[in-house]
Amino acid sequence: MIAQTPKPPYYAVIFSSLRTETLEGYGSTADRMVELAMLQPGYLGHESAREGLGITISYWASLEDIRNWKQQSEHLIAQEAGRMQWYQHYKTRICKVERDYEFEDGQYKK
Amino acid sequence: MIAQTPKPPYYAVIFSSLRTETLEGYGSTADRMVELAMLQPGYLGHESAREGLGITISYWASLEDIRNWKQQSEHLIAQEAGRMQWYQHYKTRICKVERDYEFEDGQYKK
Repeated sequence: MIAQTPKPPYYAVIFSSLRTETLEGYGSTADRMVELAMLQPGYLGHESAREGLGITISYWASLEDIRNWKQQSEHLIAQEAGRMQWYQHYKTRICKVERDYEFEDGQYKK
Repeated sequence: MIAQTPKPPYYAVIFSSLRTETLEGYGSTADRMVELAMLQPGYLGHESAREGLGITISYWASLEDIRNWKQQSEHLIAQEAGRMQWYQHYKTRICKVERDYEFEDGQYKK
């Protein structure tokens, strides 16, 4: 569930959101977007949690891969539906991952 | 709840984690770390959600601010306790936020 990304540098899109009360269509569209993102060139993984505030992070090999995913046709329709129906507030941050480190089962991973 | 950060560039620390079953001391330490982080120079905000996977993102003005927070004495003790007791697996990613955009109540914010 923690994305197994390659050595930095790579890119992250942090999508932080607060939902409306409209449930209709949200879950199936969210699932479909994950399915589509995984097929996009440069997709490296994603992580997601919601507890009132929702945070979804997707990881990408390059900024161009992020631009291409943002412009993917079915994704454009979902983004528009998101603004019209599902999200009261969101913020998207495009980031370059410069360093990372990982700990599992009592030790640092290399 | 969505962190109100300044215009990029700034920095993000993405902390993705899976907990152990040990609850003792976790909540109070987590609360204390938020309290301390907010007092650190360069702290810009944070966002957090857990749904099995936990994601906490803290935002900072510079890499030096992130280094100073990582080395803060009470935080060092909490990190050690985290590795010994509370986290089965975590990954920390240090990122430069290059661009962001925000949508609220039906419109993009500028």
